[in-house]
Amino acid sequence: MKKTRFNPAVTQLGVPAIAQAASWANNYDERYGPLMDFSQAVPDFPTHEYILAELASQAGSMNSTGYGDITGETLLRETYATHVAGIYKEHITSRNIHITSGCNQAFVAALITLAGSGDTVVVSNPCYFNHESTAQMLGIKVRYADCIAENNFQPTVEALEACLDNTVRAVALVSPNNPTGAVYSPQTLQKIFALCQQQGIWLILDETYRDFIKDESQTSGNSASKPHNLFGMTDWQNTFIQLYSFSKSLSIPGHRLGAITAGSQAVEMIARVMDNIQICPPRAAQLAVANQLLSMQDWITANAATLTERSRIFRKVLSPFSDWQIRSMGAYFAYVEHPYPERTSLDIAKLLAQDYGIRTLPGRFFGQGQENYLRVAFANANSDTIEQLADRLAVIKKRESQTAC
Amino acid sequence: MKKTRFNPAVTQLGVPAIAQAASWANNYDERYGPLMDFSQAVPDFPTHEYILAELASQAGSMNSTGYGDITGETLLRETYATHVAGIYKEHITSRNIHITSGCNQAFVAALITLAGSGDTVVVSNPCYFNHESTAQMLGIKVRYADCIAENNFQPTVEALEACLDNTVRAVALVSPNNPTGAVYSPQTLQKIFALCQQQGIWLILDETYRDFIKDESQTSGNSASKPHNLFGMTDWQNTFIQLYSFSKSLSIPGHRLGAITAGSQAVEMIARVMDNIQICPPRAAQLAVANQLLSMQDWITANAATLTERSRIFRKVLSPFSDWQIRSMGAYFAYVEHPYPERTSLDIAKLLAQDYGIRTLPGRFFGQGQENYLRVAFANANSDTIEQLADRLAVIKKRESQTAC
Repeated sequence: MKKTRFNPAVTQLGVPAIAQAASWANNYDERYGPLMDFSQAVPDFPTHEYILAELASQAGSMNSTGYGDITGETLLRETYATHVAGIYKEHITSRNIHITSGCNQAFVAALITLAGSGDTVVVSNPCYFNHESTAQMLGIKVRYADCIAENNFQPTVEALEACLDNTVRAVALVSPNNPTGAVYSPQTLQKIFALCQQQGIWLILDETYRDFIKDESQTSGNSASKPHNLFGMTDWQNTFIQLYSFSKSLSIPGHRLGAITAGSQAVEMIARVMDNIQICPPRAAQLAVANQLLSMQDWITANAATLTERSRIFRKVLSPFSDWQIRSMGAYFAYVEHPYPERTSLDIAKLLAQDYGIRTLPGRFFGQGQENYLRVAFANANSDTIEQLADRLAVIKKRESQTAC
Repeated sequence: MKKTRFNPAVTQLGVPAIAQAASWANNYDERYGPLMDFSQAVPDFPTHEYILAELASQAGSMNSTGYGDITGETLLRETYATHVAGIYKEHITSRNIHITSGCNQAFVAALITLAGSGDTVVVSNPCYFNHESTAQMLGIKVRYADCIAENNFQPTVEALEACLDNTVRAVALVSPNNPTGAVYSPQTLQKIFALCQQQGIWLILDETYRDFIKDESQTSGNSASKPHNLFGMTDWQNTFIQLYSFSKSLSIPGHRLGAITAGSQAVEMIARVMDNIQICPPRAAQLAVANQLLSMQDWITANAATLTERSRIFRKVLSPFSDWQIRSMGAYFAYVEHPYPERTSLDIAKLLAQDYGIRTLPGRFFGQGQENYLRVAFANANSDTIEQLADRLAVIKKRESQTAC
């Protein structure tokens, strides 16, 4: 009798990052105060009452019970196309939109559409771990373009170019970045787009955290500027694919709702993949968001302001602890260098969680050579919790220096 | 400047079957009566009011807005484990359950967990088209084990065995079958399981249509029997993976909800894949179904009885038209041999849709050598519509014989 086996590409993935991190604080005894969760990129803002009411109404309707279109509800595709067109000031129609069940699903569907086993995708280093694991799961090779602290974790054309060969099908970036929070400028993105277009490589840009930047040069509130000009480039449809998360911007991750904006031919190809992944995205949340999206802009902008305030407090709280260095910060995340260069990021993240009740994610989850860093998702904690981090860091400083003696 | 390209494994898939078929009747002018849709496998029963109310309640709750567990809501996993244990009379716990966003997602997650590009999956012929296209999309080769009309479209150990070599990782079957409706007996399934276990190959069994069979030897209503004994086989956890669809059984396909029952180690591996596909299944529908599943058994049984009545009417309606032969029937589907052996199934399906307003799916969507057949999803139409098919068939007989002259 022979033994069955699992796909080696799956067994080598290891336990998902968030699930791993969740367990580390299980034995924390609250001796220094309640658990502080800076691990998962969860919006801390309660869902708006209008959205909740719409979700209830649509989910309770017979109209949501049947199959929908693979590409998503027409109403949401049209509404979101208007939303995208407004932000980027370019012509975008519903034919450019594919709705997905969350932004990770947007990524896996886009990636399968562009690349297969044996192909290569280039990501930033550090990178978002699910982009890496999604590619690995599919037998797609991952190559890493370094984004270094000295350059504010910005990607460079040179680093990306060095990764290219004829197996590379796509470059996948995240801006504002996860884990560093770094926002890539329109100029940087334009240079990378030009490289990709020149080389016949797709550029996937995940803008999940776009709405959490309160920066007049970056937000939709400012009519004079926009996150980038890529939707205005000639023949962008054959190079550029953009991803977005309603889950994050509207605080409804449990309803899983994301979107892809791409050329209409790319949308048709993505639909062939999505048909095999899900037939259609769940309908009630789509209809709810379609009815409320355009009225939520002030609420979204207010949340961005709140996050900016949290980032200010976080910076203030860390400033007396000069051995903890904020190397980058933006949107949801701070990327912090911990004071123990001789120890791994995994050790430190576990230590903080188990002994001090502070959940973060270790740098090693985000790529290569990241052992000196922790990702702190300050979006996930309110201002009071962030303020209380000061006492916790003081305890750590005292106790760990004793341990070292 | 180089040109980008899509993944050839995706471009070769073609337009999804249901989307193709939907367009064929666009120009039907209702000259012979309203459009009759026998194409998609959609439950025709309105969602139960208790489920609708629960869906509204859970979707409107703040409790559903945050991320959930990758494997699904604990409450649903526990409730569904009880449901499975009750039907199959075996020990099943929540650790054997992974919730998915629909049964197609259950299949793609299971398949990625077991096989990668270059591996092979064996399916029945005819087969469910999304099983075929999912494998092709992933670069997994598909081999077909013939299930012939003369053997009531049952799979045989011999036909499966002839497909095996050391690249085969899984056999994927559907019972009750899509497209033929054929129900595989416990004895047949046990023999196939034994072959798979002997050869170190996984057996994936999609039981989406299980609840629509009113047959005392097959339904959960009968305490003496069960669809199969595979959950009772020694070490089944390392060979058997079962798929199920809440979407179908509870008439909520728009909410996308399915489940995988497998060994706990397989569930852990599937979770690594699901993390990359969706993070977690949408939560509100999970909680709604968890609260109502065990109270829905009578409603489900009544629906099965209605389908049995529809199949009886369908048989009666077709009986005077001896050139249309029902070759197999069960659960949702009849597999019908059309009277035009010199023409392709695609021609006939298009003809019926365009000229006579009858939507079906052509045999060629379901595998190799199926040109003589159409899949008729009679579950998708009520008894009156099925009765009216008699007049429509009479018109076809008259007009097509004239055309032939």
